[in-house]
Amino acid sequence: MPSSNIADVPPLAVALGDPAGIGPEITAKAWARRREDALPLFFAIGDPRSIAAVWDGPIARISGPADAAAIFPDALPIIQVEDAGEIVPGLPNPPGARCALDSLELGVGLARSDGASGLVTAPVSKSQLYGIGFAFPGQTEFVAERCGIGRGNAVMMMAGPTLRTVPITIHIPLKDVPEALTPELVMARARVTERGLIRDFGIERPRLAIAGLNPHAGESGALGREEIDILAPALEQLRGEGMDIVGPLAADTMFHARARADYDAALCLYHDQALVPIKTLHFDEGVNVTLGLPIVRTAPDHGTAFAIAGTNQANPGAMIAAIRLAGQCAAHRARGA
Amino acid sequence: MPSSNIADVPPLAVALGDPAGIGPEITAKAWARRREDALPLFFAIGDPRSIAAVWDGPIARISGPADAAAIFPDALPIIQVEDAGEIVPGLPNPPGARCALDSLELGVGLARSDGASGLVTAPVSKSQLYGIGFAFPGQTEFVAERCGIGRGNAVMMMAGPTLRTVPITIHIPLKDVPEALTPELVMARARVTERGLIRDFGIERPRLAIAGLNPHAGESGALGREEIDILAPALEQLRGEGMDIVGPLAADTMFHARARADYDAALCLYHDQALVPIKTLHFDEGVNVTLGLPIVRTAPDHGTAFAIAGTNQANPGAMIAAIRLAGQCAAHRARGA
Repeated sequence: MPSSNIADVPPLAVALGDPAGIGPEITAKAWARRREDALPLFFAIGDPRSIAAVWDGPIARISGPADAAAIFPDALPIIQVEDAGEIVPGLPNPPGARCALDSLELGVGLARSDGASGLVTAPVSKSQLYGIGFAFPGQTEFVAERCGIGRGNAVMMMAGPTLRTVPITIHIPLKDVPEALTPELVMARARVTERGLIRDFGIERPRLAIAGLNPHAGESGALGREEIDILAPALEQLRGEGMDIVGPLAADTMFHARARADYDAALCLYHDQALVPIKTLHFDEGVNVTLGLPIVRTAPDHGTAFAIAGTNQANPGAMIAAIRLAGQCAAHRARGA
Repeated sequence: MPSSNIADVPPLAVALGDPAGIGPEITAKAWARRREDALPLFFAIGDPRSIAAVWDGPIARISGPADAAAIFPDALPIIQVEDAGEIVPGLPNPPGARCALDSLELGVGLARSDGASGLVTAPVSKSQLYGIGFAFPGQTEFVAERCGIGRGNAVMMMAGPTLRTVPITIHIPLKDVPEALTPELVMARARVTERGLIRDFGIERPRLAIAGLNPHAGESGALGREEIDILAPALEQLRGEGMDIVGPLAADTMFHARARADYDAALCLYHDQALVPIKTLHFDEGVNVTLGLPIVRTAPDHGTAFAIAGTNQANPGAMIAAIRLAGQCAAHRARGA
C-alpha cells in the first residue's frame, strides 16, 4: 500500500451545529489549539456571527474548501451559510435550526464531492430541528440518507483513546432490547464494524468482542437464553466467514484495561452497555464515528449544552478528538484507496 | 462522637473459602503486605495445609481470636477447621467445600459473638457447595440467614476507591428486570444503602444517586416509562422521608470522575449497570460489602480462579482492599456504637 502525504488530503469540514449551542465555541477553541494538538486542516460551516458572539479570535470567510489551507494558520476559515437570524447563546430558535441543517447539508455535499476529506458535526437541537420539519431521528440518519445508505447500514461507533464500542440497538426502551436482537442484526452490525475498522482505522485484521445480554453472559442459560439462542448462531456464522470475534463475554469483566487490550472494538447489545464504559473512561474525549458511509463522519459525543453556551466554559476536548480522528480516518482511506 | 482507638477493636476473621481456589494464596499474600498496606489485625479460618500448599511463609495455628494479636506480627494466625481432605490447587472436591462452609459458619459465629470485628470471605465454589447440599444462592444469603436477616434486607454493595454501586436486581435475566423493579424494592434497597453508608462508612448524611433503566433515563417517557411509573413514586416518597437522592440519572453520564464526586453511592437497576462501571474502573480492587447485617462482612469481588490456583499468579489486591475496608467499617461501627 503506497504511503501518501496527509497534506494531499483535502481539508475537513466542521458543521457548527446549532448556533446557540456550544458548537461554535468548541470549534473555535479547537482551531486555537491547532498547533499544540497537531490538528489536521479544517474549515467551519455555519454563521460566522455564532462564533463571534462567543469568541474573540480571528475568523475569515472563505468561498470554498480550496481557500482553507492559506487561511488556516492565521484565522479560522468558515464557509457562511444562510443567516441564522438572531443568535443568543443558550436560546435556540427556528432560524438557528435552519442554519444548522444547511450547514450539515453543505458539509455532506462537500464531503461527497471530495471538497472535504471528511465531515465533523457539532451538536444540534433535535427538538428545534423537528420544529422546522426535520424528519430524521438525528444527524447520523440524515447524513446516511444523503449518502444513499440505508439507515440500518450506518453504524454508530463510540471511540475513545483506549476503547471503541458499537451499540447494536440504540434508542429503544430497555425492555424492548431482547426482542429487537436478532442474529441478522448482530451479523450486520459486526460486518459493518469490521469493514470500518479496516477502512477507517487501518486495522488489517480487526479483533472484535461481543458482550452478552445477561449477568455473566447468561451462565450457560441459567440467567437468560439470548446468548444461546441469538448470539451463538450469529457468531458461528461470522466465524465461518473468517471474522475474528470473541464472546459473548460477561459485560462486567470486558472493559477493564487488560481486557480492552484484547480487542479493537466491542459490540454491545444496548445503548448503556456501550455508552457506560466509554463515557466512564473517556467522558471528555469520546467521539461518535459513523461507520458504513461513503464519507468520513465524526462528532463529539455530547449535546448542545445550551445551559453553558456563551459562558466560555465549554470543554473542546471531544471536538478536538473528533477532528483529529476524522483526519486519521481520512488519511487511512486515502492510503487504502 | 468519641474517637476510639482502632487497636481496641477485635481482629477481623478471614474465611479462606474453597481450599483449592486462590483464597488461601491471596490471604497469605495480604498478610505478607500487612505493614506496607497498614492492614488491620486479622486471622484466617480454614485448613492451614491449603495455605502451605501454595505459600512458604510462616503460619501459626491459634485456638481463638484472642491469640491473633500476639502472633500477627510474625506469622499468619489461623484457626483450623475440619480437615479439608486432599488439597490440590485448582481441583475442588466435596471435602474442600465442607471445609469452606465450616470456615464460613465459624466466621459468622465469631463475628456475631464479637470474637471478630468483621468477616471477610474468600471465594467459594458454588457448584461444589451445591453438591454437599448447600441451599443458598451464595455466601451472602447464608451469612444473612445465620444473622437472622431476611435475604431481601442484606444488600450487596460494590465498593472501589472512587465509586460505590448497589445493584437493585442481581442475578436475573435482563428481560426480567423491568417487571422485577417495583417502588417497594427500590425504596427498600435505598434505605438499607443509606443506613449502611452511615453506620459502616461514617458518612453522616449520605448522598445517593439512582440510575434510570432506559437510554437517557427514558427521555421523559419517549424511550421507556419505568422512570416515570416506578422510580418517580419511590423517589418522591424517599425524599419525603428526608433522603438525599438524585435521579433517575442517565446511566451513561453518571460514572465519569466529575459525576462520581456528587454522590456517595449509586443505586443501579440491574447487575451489569452496577458492575460494568465498578469493574471497568477498579477491576483489581473491587470489594463486595454486604449492607444491612448485624456484622461487618466484605469479600473480594472475584471468584475462586481455579485455573490459576497454585501458580502464584493470584493478585491479592481485592483481598487487601476487602480486609482494609472491613477494618474501616468495623472502626466506624465501634465509633458509632
